[in-house]
Amino acid sequence: MSELPMNSLVCPLLTDMYQISMTYAHWKNGRTNDHGVFDIFFRKNPFQGEFCIFAGLDEVIKFLASFKFSESDIEYLKTILPKAESDFFEYLKTLDCKNVKLYAMAEGTLCFPKEVLIRIEAPLSIGHLLETTTLNLINYPSLIATNAVRMRLAAGPGKVLLEFGLRRAQGPDGAMSASKYSYIGGFSGTSNVLSGKLCGLPVKGTHAHAYVMSYQSLRELCKTTITSPTDPNVELEFLQVVLEKQKLLPFSRGNEGELAAFTAFAQAFPSGLVALVDTYDTLGSGIPNFLAVSWALLEVGYKAIGIRLDSGDLAYLSRKAREMFKEVDKLTNSTNFGKLQIVASNDINEDILVSLNNEGHEIDSFGIGTHLVTCQKQPALGCVYKLVEVNGCPRIKLSQELEKLVIPGRKVVYRLFGADGKPLIDVMQLHDEEPPKIGERMLCRHPFIENKRANVVPSSVQILLELAWDGEKGFIGKNKTMDEKRDYCKQQIDTIRADHVRSTNPTPYKISVSEHLYDFIHKMWMENATIAELC
Amino acid sequence: MSELPMNSLVCPLLTDMYQISMTYAHWKNGRTNDHGVFDIFFRKNPFQGEFCIFAGLDEVIKFLASFKFSESDIEYLKTILPKAESDFFEYLKTLDCKNVKLYAMAEGTLCFPKEVLIRIEAPLSIGHLLETTTLNLINYPSLIATNAVRMRLAAGPGKVLLEFGLRRAQGPDGAMSASKYSYIGGFSGTSNVLSGKLCGLPVKGTHAHAYVMSYQSLRELCKTTITSPTDPNVELEFLQVVLEKQKLLPFSRGNEGELAAFTAFAQAFPSGLVALVDTYDTLGSGIPNFLAVSWALLEVGYKAIGIRLDSGDLAYLSRKAREMFKEVDKLTNSTNFGKLQIVASNDINEDILVSLNNEGHEIDSFGIGTHLVTCQKQPALGCVYKLVEVNGCPRIKLSQELEKLVIPGRKVVYRLFGADGKPLIDVMQLHDEEPPKIGERMLCRHPFIENKRANVVPSSVQILLELAWDGEKGFIGKNKTMDEKRDYCKQQIDTIRADHVRSTNPTPYKISVSEHLYDFIHKMWMENATIAELC
Repeated sequence: MSELPMNSLVCPLLTDMYQISMTYAHWKNGRTNDHGVFDIFFRKNPFQGEFCIFAGLDEVIKFLASFKFSESDIEYLKTILPKAESDFFEYLKTLDCKNVKLYAMAEGTLCFPKEVLIRIEAPLSIGHLLETTTLNLINYPSLIATNAVRMRLAAGPGKVLLEFGLRRAQGPDGAMSASKYSYIGGFSGTSNVLSGKLCGLPVKGTHAHAYVMSYQSLRELCKTTITSPTDPNVELEFLQVVLEKQKLLPFSRGNEGELAAFTAFAQAFPSGLVALVDTYDTLGSGIPNFLAVSWALLEVGYKAIGIRLDSGDLAYLSRKAREMFKEVDKLTNSTNFGKLQIVASNDINEDILVSLNNEGHEIDSFGIGTHLVTCQKQPALGCVYKLVEVNGCPRIKLSQELEKLVIPGRKVVYRLFGADGKPLIDVMQLHDEEPPKIGERMLCRHPFIENKRANVVPSSVQILLELAWDGEKGFIGKNKTMDEKRDYCKQQIDTIRADHVRSTNPTPYKISVSEHLYDFIHKMWMENATIAELC
Repeated sequence: MSELPMNSLVCPLLTDMYQISMTYAHWKNGRTNDHGVFDIFFRKNPFQGEFCIFAGLDEVIKFLASFKFSESDIEYLKTILPKAESDFFEYLKTLDCKNVKLYAMAEGTLCFPKEVLIRIEAPLSIGHLLETTTLNLINYPSLIATNAVRMRLAAGPGKVLLEFGLRRAQGPDGAMSASKYSYIGGFSGTSNVLSGKLCGLPVKGTHAHAYVMSYQSLRELCKTTITSPTDPNVELEFLQVVLEKQKLLPFSRGNEGELAAFTAFAQAFPSGLVALVDTYDTLGSGIPNFLAVSWALLEVGYKAIGIRLDSGDLAYLSRKAREMFKEVDKLTNSTNFGKLQIVASNDINEDILVSLNNEGHEIDSFGIGTHLVTCQKQPALGCVYKLVEVNGCPRIKLSQELEKLVIPGRKVVYRLFGADGKPLIDVMQLHDEEPPKIGERMLCRHPFIENKRANVVPSSVQILLELAWDGEKGFIGKNKTMDEKRDYCKQQIDTIRADHVRSTNPTPYKISVSEHLYDFIHKMWMENATIAELC
């Protein structure tokens, strides 16, 4: 993994000003090489659910690999820090990630609130300088992957799910990340051509209303033939066949421009016709026109793929469409039409997928845009990056809000599995504790709430944080393909208890700490908290 | 404006697959040079408001200027269109925007549902190929600019508003666009250093909790002095002064590590201290420590800037902080502390700004992240791109939903102003109609609802769509600075009736069509709509 970040905007200046200010303050105080440990975690599962999927690590690694202030970066920084000593800028020029270690979960891992997703061990200055960019590169990918998993669970395993959100995404990266990380979460492909080129994703798409509207009459067709499926040098009469079939169909005759558009599209893509049928009237024009063209295609030796519904009551229209397809099967005494694909798009979200399934529909594929890419239900995952140790001494961040307390110290995370192979609980320990042992009972405690405890006897134990960047050695580990990440994510979802990932009233998965870490947290907490003076 | 797009991902492949498919279908049918007119507009104002701000044009122009399929793009397209004729790929290589005209509103213009924001006149093939990328480059910038204006209106004109959303934005562009377009909407600056470098925005920032936590004791300070404000070669004793002042203050003594951190930060930025005061206990530790350091700064000849609150009840804490500042004024018989700045951050949104103002607070500056950049209340603006004319003939897109009907034909948009200089109504006309005349009554009609009409006598008339890209000539017009765009946007908001832009129950602004266009729409509608057969 030596490539540059996908987006050329990813560079050390893509950060908050205060990271530079803090680096300067540390430099001035001779602390740049003091050693920090930083945790990345979130406090609340997204989408009112009880799980999240970790993603974005590959781009973080590329950011670390390419971390270097350019000459023009330095010149710019001089203008905004005019009083800083010039040696500081020389120091910045020397910075890279050769003193950094990064431990992380694998992309596609199920993760939960409070547990460490990434642990960065670095000199304080570099540690600060990595914060903002790393969070930017983790937050949205993890959110999208989670959203995609939720939609996959709602749609069911047999459906095709396509990411259609490029135009509504929050900028070009919103779109690229949506394509890439929704695929990891179980989507089948995307409409975004560039993500096909850069990430190797399956790319899909047919035509738009504008294409249909660009035709008003059959006279606009420049030819009436179609290339023979068996001999590319032979042209077969096609328009005539379409018009004959139209007459035979027991449906109203549709808009002529629309028929011309479908015919022209079939001439260009004889094996690829997915007709958008709602430009004028789905049942009264679009589907009849599509069926005329697809029957004609069959007659000359091709097979249409299906239709796309983009407005109206998708459940009803899909059932009516299926009925019409089957009517043509009866008419032709065949089974060629009944199984034509029905693609649906138009403001689909997780709730609509659930409600369509409850009502009953005949949709085979969903194209999902806005709600997938913007994560309408919760457009940000609140990952944070907190200092937990300096020069070997644990640090604690207090807060009046219990939820905002940061668990101090250099920690490891284990997932403990039951005899059925399903995860029971995750447990965090200090890095120098003995790991949980298979078959041995251990007491796991809620990190903050005293009476929440469980004894656990794991049948197997998985360590969740693995070294991914090792200083001078750089990236450690295996480059995984998109499909490997996707399979891993699917396996994660398949092995967890279904009630943790269901959409309605899911059961929280337990995140705990070892008894030693519990005692340690509470001791530090009481040592550092001020006692209020009420008077 | 000859620069490349800010983001290197912006290229002709950053598009939906169906645009390429349609281009191929048009090419196969010899229609690539048929001439289309495409409108960009939205159907509903964002954020339950009654206005929107148009933005993103500069990046669209850069996209047009750089539009060219690369060799590797073509090679990739061959793999996903394996059956397409090879001449098609030669044709794609020749494509650019030398036959395209683009008319648009100026960035920062107030705009409303149904009215044309951009009109593109282009050969059909290029017209399709520009759709997705252009929408991507308009939707989010316009949404962010609108969100920023709303927050500016909620905060009031005197407050400093800072964009702090980089870590929570939807990818690097989400962040860059948020910085840039929130500035146009009236923000004062950003924490995002790269947007400072690339867009010239004011960049702000102080330090994080991690910085405070990186100190545990005063012994960690490597020096106890501060550079003299009058002579950079002289070091003045500082820590001793801080400790003396701490003893004189009538507050509880704070956390020692925090005092060390503030002292070190003041040593590095003697004129730039904004202390983050909530790491341990805002009133019990953070503010007392800050006041000790700022009093000491004063003693040696500097002046602190203020504090940042990042958790808890911001209204209450800001009032208490102001009281404590004033107490030190009394104690020192001065006015040095009462006016120290109070910056607040932590999940601020438009509603919280309104409610803080209602309750009363002492905050001078707001740092706004997640809710600004993700536009939590409505994370997508639904701009669409519709074909309205082919080879001089208007086209109409019908829909069972009245709201989704597209107004056909090549249109111009005028804003009519009253005698008080405030906008009265916007009116769309066909391009060959006589423009509205000053002082002459004209009938303006709701585009779809028959009985909604108004007679308007404009005191002045503004044409809203201006030629911005003129084929071979390229970009037309004047490059505006960020500040010019920002001033223009402010002037737009200042001149519209306040009830259109208020946050609660705003009054809809009227969007209308000329009588001629009204008749034209309804004639086309009835000609093209099928009549349902109920049986």
